[in-house]
Amino acid sequence: MTSDATAPRLSLRVKLGASSFLGPGKIGLLRRIDELGSISAAARDMGMSYRRAWLLIDSLNQTLPTPVLSTELGGPGGGGATLTATGRRLLDLYLAIEVRSTEAASEELEELGRLLETTEGRSSGH
Amino acid sequence: MTSDATAPRLSLRVKLGASSFLGPGKIGLLRRIDELGSISAAARDMGMSYRRAWLLIDSLNQTLPTPVLSTELGGPGGGGATLTATGRRLLDLYLAIEVRSTEAASEELEELGRLLETTEGRSSGH
Repeated sequence: MTSDATAPRLSLRVKLGASSFLGPGKIGLLRRIDELGSISAAARDMGMSYRRAWLLIDSLNQTLPTPVLSTELGGPGGGGATLTATGRRLLDLYLAIEVRSTEAASEELEELGRLLETTEGRSSGH
Repeated sequence: MTSDATAPRLSLRVKLGASSFLGPGKIGLLRRIDELGSISAAARDMGMSYRRAWLLIDSLNQTLPTPVLSTELGGPGGGGATLTATGRRLLDLYLAIEVRSTEAASEELEELGRLLETTEGRSSGH
């Protein structure tokens, strides 16, 4: 009914602490680091400065009891980085939350799509 | 297990169009307008300028086929505003999405809470 281009979709942020959020930006970065094995490569791939990538990772490290990445010193291109068990768990939990939420709210998301497309909202009934 | 103060919770945004989001800010404003019957009273109550409130409402109106508010001209204090059927439907759908998502992801949110509190992430297993 609703075309993919206009279908509303969830963009999830999870409030972790008093002022810390886990959202698409940090999750995208973690996924890219997991794929590419390096913070600098992931940052470059996402068109983000190394500094910004590092600040995002650092804010996760400040929130969690153990770091999300294990890094090793490297040459001019920077060292490698891999997700720790904490980093992987964080990523997996966020992705599971995204899947479950989208599934659970699929009917309402479809209805939102219809509200965007039609003028049925004009009726004063219901 | 997880204390309420630190329990992770969802902060939902729904991507409505190419660049339009429906999130806690606009939803909070719609709820306040619904309660107080006036954009200016709602803005004041939220510590937001009238201009900012109006821009948020206008961005919703630009996205939807029909306006979310019905307004009437008023005196010096500004006129009244009530939600249209579209506005109410939008509010109801967002709140339903929030309830369903939070329910569906409750286990993962609790587990995130445990990840924040403990050092169990330190183990390399799983």
